[in-house]
Amino acid sequence: MQVGGQHYRTIWFDEDEWGVVNIIDQRKLPFCFEIEKLRTLEQAAVAIKDMHVRGAGCVGATAGYGMFLAAKEALTAEDFELALRLSAQQLMATRPTAVNLQWAVERQLSAVLAQSSSAARISCARQTAQDIADEDVEACTQIGQHGLELIRQAAAKKIEGEAVNILTHCNAGWLAFVDHGSATAPIYAAQAAGIAVHVWVDETRPRNQGARLTAWELEQAGVPYTLIVDNVGGHLMQHGQVDMVITGTDRTTYTGDVANKIGTYLKALAAFDNAVPFYVALPSSTFDWELADGVNGIPIEERGGDEVTKMEGRLDGQDEIREFWLVGEKTPAANYAFDVTPARLVSRLITERGICAASAAGVAALFPERKTGG
Amino acid sequence: MQVGGQHYRTIWFDEDEWGVVNIIDQRKLPFCFEIEKLRTLEQAAVAIKDMHVRGAGCVGATAGYGMFLAAKEALTAEDFELALRLSAQQLMATRPTAVNLQWAVERQLSAVLAQSSSAARISCARQTAQDIADEDVEACTQIGQHGLELIRQAAAKKIEGEAVNILTHCNAGWLAFVDHGSATAPIYAAQAAGIAVHVWVDETRPRNQGARLTAWELEQAGVPYTLIVDNVGGHLMQHGQVDMVITGTDRTTYTGDVANKIGTYLKALAAFDNAVPFYVALPSSTFDWELADGVNGIPIEERGGDEVTKMEGRLDGQDEIREFWLVGEKTPAANYAFDVTPARLVSRLITERGICAASAAGVAALFPERKTGG
Repeated sequence: MQVGGQHYRTIWFDEDEWGVVNIIDQRKLPFCFEIEKLRTLEQAAVAIKDMHVRGAGCVGATAGYGMFLAAKEALTAEDFELALRLSAQQLMATRPTAVNLQWAVERQLSAVLAQSSSAARISCARQTAQDIADEDVEACTQIGQHGLELIRQAAAKKIEGEAVNILTHCNAGWLAFVDHGSATAPIYAAQAAGIAVHVWVDETRPRNQGARLTAWELEQAGVPYTLIVDNVGGHLMQHGQVDMVITGTDRTTYTGDVANKIGTYLKALAAFDNAVPFYVALPSSTFDWELADGVNGIPIEERGGDEVTKMEGRLDGQDEIREFWLVGEKTPAANYAFDVTPARLVSRLITERGICAASAAGVAALFPERKTGG
Repeated sequence: MQVGGQHYRTIWFDEDEWGVVNIIDQRKLPFCFEIEKLRTLEQAAVAIKDMHVRGAGCVGATAGYGMFLAAKEALTAEDFELALRLSAQQLMATRPTAVNLQWAVERQLSAVLAQSSSAARISCARQTAQDIADEDVEACTQIGQHGLELIRQAAAKKIEGEAVNILTHCNAGWLAFVDHGSATAPIYAAQAAGIAVHVWVDETRPRNQGARLTAWELEQAGVPYTLIVDNVGGHLMQHGQVDMVITGTDRTTYTGDVANKIGTYLKALAAFDNAVPFYVALPSSTFDWELADGVNGIPIEERGGDEVTKMEGRLDGQDEIREFWLVGEKTPAANYAFDVTPARLVSRLITERGICAASAAGVAALFPERKTGG
């Protein structure tokens, strides 16, 4: 994607310094675009744990690159395999819920441990990190192309020159992947195809990923958008101002139940009530092939109440990002990070293989090779 | 209600200085409890427009007191009636959605203009302002008693000692009225009756009236509560953690469509989807007896985008309330202040006369003397 007219991924090998990995420090957006250099496994682990990077695809890719850094360090260890396995454990402990993280680490482990020479190990780790990132980009590209057709159909119903209005929640943009994003990929594809789009960006309390990341992404890409608080979407849908909703997902059951950022369920209810299509975009790595009942089966992370009672911002005329109390310091707060939207409220899933109904039959038709059920 | 153990209303005549009106400057809560003195119509209009006071009942009462200040000023005008009518227009232009504002101003106009002497005019304006406030208190007291029965029924289904969980959105507390509140009146009545209650307080972006006002009110009253972001309610209802929703309303059609703070509609959808009762508490002054179609007929105020892009808070260890940017300064933002919940999603209306279905028939049964329809 473009930042200030230059192409970036969220993570990449440094061109000048061999073995160094670059990431965008997403904690500082939108106030400051800062590239961080990862030189050690420890730095990669901290980047994931402390959310310098976040989002399923981006976390997976960072784990892939992190395993390259781990392999580099393990070359000087007495026992290469032991050292690499310990590093793998360290990475996997950073964010225990992200399925892509575990998948990327395990893929690196089995690829690298199959090599015997130092040169082969390091070259394999480097190539696998690159492959994981490239495949993420390819999956998102495909999601974009499939989703584009849905936007094209919506555009065909519009008056000439009128934009297709798309609402999105949280950030399932390129910052959450390596490039393009999942929910945003069809939007970027539509823009490239010359279709007029306008995006309603949900603020996404409590961490404001919509306001801070999605808005910034769309701004950089030149896609027209409007920031709204999370309360607004229903009103817009009642008044015909939303043509479709597209969100990402952190985990989707093979039956089509969608876990995503808290508040997604409310938007799905409003979309259903107003006959607005509700699409969920995901690479197939986000499917949970074991779980049938998302509402009762997917564990929902509870985070600290201080994310609700405090917020980050910038004082007028100052560059520094400060933390503010929104309420009295002793205010009790609960902070559920995700919710689950039942499949009955999801119009379609947009995957890298195509579009399907949010149902066991729909998903199975696109992914017939997958064994499902617990 | 009690603040620091002392009884307060939200608005009252100063005891020491004749003709001066006191309000609580709600913009400073919860950080600072500050009383403001209104001496002129202009100050009353600013207090409403800039939301030193807010909430249907409190805005109505302030308009009532404001008309007293206007009458005082008009006594020295060449044409008393013209001056008073101009002041009435100024007050009515401050906020477009709340019906109480218009109602209070018109009640004062017709009462005061029926008098002929200066002494009678000013005494009538003073008495009418006091009456409007007293009637508001009485209506909220009655709402509390009727709503108490609904909480009592919910409590009867609970295990001994388990609290009734009530979710509320925005602030329809005593700060939004003159005392007791509408949505909170049954909660305070339940507390007084010894029924265990716990309140889920929606933050209520963008102005955070839930976080800043409702949480503060409940804290002062000693009612257990937990602050949540607006995205959370649906998840809680899916998991049986909400026994009922009670909100207020800024305008309700005689057919039962409910205009209330933006985001109310989303909570009503979630309540309906999970068979959680959704109650709306209102004094009958909030009914719109003309309008049948709330979704298409009630004008929705659009406020400045800076309420979305900026927020007020307090830096750690500092008392001063500061404004900070949540996003880049040029971020385009839309800010719809209210939405309309269709009557089909509203379980019951709680009024000062009793509880009724949210339908033309239900409302008419409680208020048979009212002529309805446009």
